[in-house]
Amino acid sequence: MKNSKRFALLGTKKLLKLDSGKNLRNFKIAYQTYGKLNKNKNNAILVCHALSGDQYAAGQNPITKKNGWWSKAIGPNLPIDTNKFFVICSNILGGCLGSAGPKEINPKTKKTYNMLFPVITIRDMVNAQKMLIDKLGIKKLLSVIGGSAGGFQALQWAASYPEKVTTTIPIATSIRHSAQNIAFHEVGRQAIMSDPDWCNGNYINKKKRPEKGLTVARMLAHITYLSEEAFQRKFGRNLQNKLSLTYGFKTDFQVESYLKYQGQAFVDRFDANSYLYITRAMDYFDLPAQNKGGLKSIFKNTPVKFCVISFTSDWVYPTKYSKEIVDSLNAVGANVSFVEIQTDMGHDAFLLDEKEFNETVRGFLKATAAKLGF
Amino acid sequence: MKNSKRFALLGTKKLLKLDSGKNLRNFKIAYQTYGKLNKNKNNAILVCHALSGDQYAAGQNPITKKNGWWSKAIGPNLPIDTNKFFVICSNILGGCLGSAGPKEINPKTKKTYNMLFPVITIRDMVNAQKMLIDKLGIKKLLSVIGGSAGGFQALQWAASYPEKVTTTIPIATSIRHSAQNIAFHEVGRQAIMSDPDWCNGNYINKKKRPEKGLTVARMLAHITYLSEEAFQRKFGRNLQNKLSLTYGFKTDFQVESYLKYQGQAFVDRFDANSYLYITRAMDYFDLPAQNKGGLKSIFKNTPVKFCVISFTSDWVYPTKYSKEIVDSLNAVGANVSFVEIQTDMGHDAFLLDEKEFNETVRGFLKATAAKLGF
Repeated sequence: MKNSKRFALLGTKKLLKLDSGKNLRNFKIAYQTYGKLNKNKNNAILVCHALSGDQYAAGQNPITKKNGWWSKAIGPNLPIDTNKFFVICSNILGGCLGSAGPKEINPKTKKTYNMLFPVITIRDMVNAQKMLIDKLGIKKLLSVIGGSAGGFQALQWAASYPEKVTTTIPIATSIRHSAQNIAFHEVGRQAIMSDPDWCNGNYINKKKRPEKGLTVARMLAHITYLSEEAFQRKFGRNLQNKLSLTYGFKTDFQVESYLKYQGQAFVDRFDANSYLYITRAMDYFDLPAQNKGGLKSIFKNTPVKFCVISFTSDWVYPTKYSKEIVDSLNAVGANVSFVEIQTDMGHDAFLLDEKEFNETVRGFLKATAAKLGF
Repeated sequence: MKNSKRFALLGTKKLLKLDSGKNLRNFKIAYQTYGKLNKNKNNAILVCHALSGDQYAAGQNPITKKNGWWSKAIGPNLPIDTNKFFVICSNILGGCLGSAGPKEINPKTKKTYNMLFPVITIRDMVNAQKMLIDKLGIKKLLSVIGGSAGGFQALQWAASYPEKVTTTIPIATSIRHSAQNIAFHEVGRQAIMSDPDWCNGNYINKKKRPEKGLTVARMLAHITYLSEEAFQRKFGRNLQNKLSLTYGFKTDFQVESYLKYQGQAFVDRFDANSYLYITRAMDYFDLPAQNKGGLKSIFKNTPVKFCVISFTSDWVYPTKYSKEIVDSLNAVGANVSFVEIQTDMGHDAFLLDEKEFNETVRGFLKATAAKLGF
């Protein structure tokens, strides 16, 4: 599958009211689609990407020239089967691959937003996605699926637009960002903002890039996406292209080399200010706080069917966070199934080819489609 | 108790051979003592500090004006009872409070070492401590006690000088540094070395300090020293001196404020190059690799009695690492007891006033003293 750049210009008639009180009008959302929308327009699935993802969920990513981040899950005969479903994936608000965000031009001032882009929330992202879905003429989504921050969006969709979503699959996620996760994000942000090439956020104007800070932020984040067991199994104390310790501060261990590679690859494709904005949106996510009655009030009488998935070795959003979602849904008699997948691959397991995970997603979507009569 | 600056000049007759192949001669080790050495000189306990510690284990730290890092454990009638024991704590080799390290003057060149200080290992630190103990006229230590990297030293003492140690208490530690722990250290080092004020390590000469990089490194490390549960209990999503989110990138959450405070307080008392050297020494620690036969060969027929202590919520050196020590010792019929302490305070629990921990240390030392006849 080949990806070409596609945008929707939104907020032309009705502006997007943000949680901060600010507004966005005439803003772009970049998106990709896979498969075909059927006549009844009832086979559309919205896939929501995580912090470091983008709209190139399948096919070739034109920036990295690598396969899309979820190409193992989306495609003909794959768990999210494009022979059957019409898959939409949009770059989130605040992202850096074409959607409105800090590196884009403010249509009002004709200048790059930089840090004058308004701070956005997960709900703002979802509201922008809703405008896109409306524009595409889709009345109801067959499913909203996402892992990590994508799972935040999937839960927010069910909370904000229950009549627009038949099912949702929140994966490796939570109803709110924890103190420890805010802490990790803050360290990453401080690494970026401490880099003199960040230039108070105006690095684009100054023709600089806070590469070192963003590398450190990504190296740190990457540790949290794996598990202690997987680090031990994959790298242990193996040395990188050498037979003995160098007694120096260059790369001695494979795990150091791996992290540096991950950091560099990220800097080549991601914008530092976007990293600040999206991590902040994640920190701000607290679904129960959106309603005085908490999660039970939010999901009382919900028509949405949920399939919650967690991974045993995920320590960013451990299984107990998924159980919190499931318990709240069960308490209001919602339709919810829950699967905990055994793996040592940590939080990022949803991006990998985990058999049990694939079968869970495939089966749940197949059953949803069958109920809709196709 | 008041601390005055005390140094020993070591390596004057016999130089210190380092694992790297380099040597140190005429080098200083800064140390403190608490309590009195008895006539038989058999009541001495060596306390080994961790990565960010120093020789001011008890009394007032003259730099921070706060109580020493282990003042809850060391003192009259405390678990390490200075009415009974003579406690020695030395600043580790590579440290920054007076012992030979990157910020000290190279006696040969009369210039600050900076990054020309040789890369050192945990074994080098222990060999320097051994020279200090010799100088103090102590033939055998009643115990060597330490948590974290201090635990590495305690284990290394038992391995290198079994005839010089009656007992050892390795706390919240491991026989080797894990891949994930190397990874966290490398992120911290990259944060420091990415700071332009690091000046390739020559910041002292340039009258600069890589404060931002060291702050980021410490903020990150601090997350690992606590536990997810404790973060949630202590901070949750509480806001810092405000009633609602600011939709900005300054401090919104208490946990952010706490980490920044920890980072700043550390920068005020610690040297960035020392941080590089000590983390590297920890990465290099792999006790079984010191002997072809591994840990079993190292501890076969050991006369040393061990008391291994771990904490349930420690995810830097989880209980399974302590069990690895215990299993190896049991396999060679060594005298070992093991206690896992229930707490949500994570790795740093050994620095706090944990009742069960205190009683374990107190009881073990009391029994040791009784066997020695006092």
